[in-house]
Amino acid sequence: MLIDLSKSSMALDVALSKARELNLEPLAVVVLDSGGNMVAMKREDGAGILRSEIAFSKAWGALGMGFGSRNLMERVRRMPAFFVALASVSNGRVVPVPGGVLIRDDDGKVIGAVGVSGATSDQDELCAVAGIKAAGLNADPGNDVF
Amino acid sequence: MLIDLSKSSMALDVALSKARELNLEPLAVVVLDSGGNMVAMKREDGAGILRSEIAFSKAWGALGMGFGSRNLMERVRRMPAFFVALASVSNGRVVPVPGGVLIRDDDGKVIGAVGVSGATSDQDELCAVAGIKAAGLNADPGNDVF
Amino acid sequence: MLIDLSKSSMALDVALSKARELNLEPLAVVVLDSGGNMVAMKREDGAGILRSEIAFSKAWGALGMGFGSRNLMERVRRMPAFFVALASVSNGRVVPVPGGVLIRDDDGKVIGAVGVSGATSDQDELCAVAGIKAAGLNADPGNDVF
Amino acid sequence: MLIDLSKSSMALDVALSKARELNLEPLAVVVLDSGGNMVAMKREDGAGILRSEIAFSKAWGALGMGFGSRNLMERVRRMPAFFVALASVSNGRVVPVPGGVLIRDDDGKVIGAVGVSGATSDQDELCAVAGIKAAGLNADPGNDVF
Repeated sequence: MLIDLSKSSMALDVALSKARELNLEPLAVVVLDSGGNMVAMKREDGAGILRSEIAFSKAWGALGMGFGSRNLMERVRRMPAFFVALASVSNGRVVPVPGGVLIRDDDGKVIGAVGVSGATSDQDELCAVAGIKAAGLNADPGNDVF
Repeated sequence: MLIDLSKSSMALDVALSKARELNLEPLAVVVLDSGGNMVAMKREDGAGILRSEIAFSKAWGALGMGFGSRNLMERVRRMPAFFVALASVSNGRVVPVPGGVLIRDDDGKVIGAVGVSGATSDQDELCAVAGIKAAGLNADPGNDVF
Repeated sequence: MLIDLSKSSMALDVALSKARELNLEPLAVVVLDSGGNMVAMKREDGAGILRSEIAFSKAWGALGMGFGSRNLMERVRRMPAFFVALASVSNGRVVPVPGGVLIRDDDGKVIGAVGVSGATSDQDELCAVAGIKAAGLNADPGNDVF
Repeated sequence: MLIDLSKSSMALDVALSKARELNLEPLAVVVLDSGGNMVAMKREDGAGILRSEIAFSKAWGALGMGFGSRNLMERVRRMPAFFVALASVSNGRVVPVPGGVLIRDDDGKVIGAVGVSGATSDQDELCAVAGIKAAGLNADPGNDVF
């Protein structure tokens, strides 16, 4: 199953509301279906012009590897050369910091991903998770790997 | 001036409402600021996975050349080689059919563009224009050139 | 020899003055040295955001092929497939319409090129030629080929 | 708002005068509008042929991330993998050393950026700031982050 536009829009708008509530730096938020194709995106006024691509690549990288982008953070420290290769294999669509969150249905199947960029990585992730939950779906940001 | 997220969202959502009202094929709609950077996009359920890029490139091509994409349609017939070159110069960001509509402020300055893809080009353009007008802005789809 | 910054700036500024005198559409003007590397460029307010790249590629294509871009116009009609290949070989740096003008020294050696985009191709070329002459150099826009 | 050609030219020419006054190595200077599109550039005689692209990417990276490139220097030391990813996401348009300076209007809004390359990073930045100030605008080179 793929996430639909209606739930994608809800997740996106709640992620942005969360950011405003917390008074974060301006964000870009991107929602992808499980095929890695964009369903919805918004970039807030004042956000840097690369923020959309970073948000996209956090989400795409999560789908690409099969786990939330938080999971990639520690791996990159252990295997830096692998991630240099990944950057190239993926044409830059893997950004290994928190804020790329998988969306799972109640059976645990991946139906899409949300990527957020603009604030700190932890804040980006928090907004993504809030959006996904508000849409009645399950958020998988990836676990810390030690 | 650049179009802001609030007006971009309004233009986008009205463009999609128009499409549902007319019972058109599923659309992708993209809103760019005047610098060619994405501010908002949505892709309806069932729309082909290239529709977002086509919508993007209709809007980007309009900004790139400085006139609405309807204007490019006849030019391409007269100078096909120029448009082969343009496709390459622009990395595929020029799609010379109607549906890439410039957004102008009341002084006539370009502040962004809306691109729509999924239905016929004329219908795509109609939705883009409806959205831009609903946001209180001026739509410039380009004139037919003969 | 390569054109220097001083003469490049002069050529560029006179090309733009010419455009304002003739009340043309807003232009982008690019000056390249004989190595195809940019020495100076300006894009006027209101010019489309792809105009710089088109101007660059008119000039680069002239250097790339060894004759002014006017020369390419008729060739493209005779050998369209060759120009599709050229677009690809050059990564989009050949635009076969007038407005890419070689700069020659008094011995006829190519020392750079000027590319102009924004108005009609003939007007673009006229401005490039005016700029090059004002800098005391020789302009080679390419001949019409029949 | 976008920086216009007139102020861009002034910023650029003063940046170069500053470099000559200080007898620095030959520079390339690039001015971008807030959308990341080039408005003006000059490369001094003798400057390396990659200097224009480096200057471009210092400025573009500042716009892309939303802060002056000095800010990126320390971040890159803390999160090297993120910057490998950024290089790829941005197609090489982020250069995380000083010399990419945001241009802000009196309300603090980003209206463009100046990038300089050719001398030391600190000297590059000094020239960019001098140019921006001479154009009556506000320079934001980014803070040192510790």
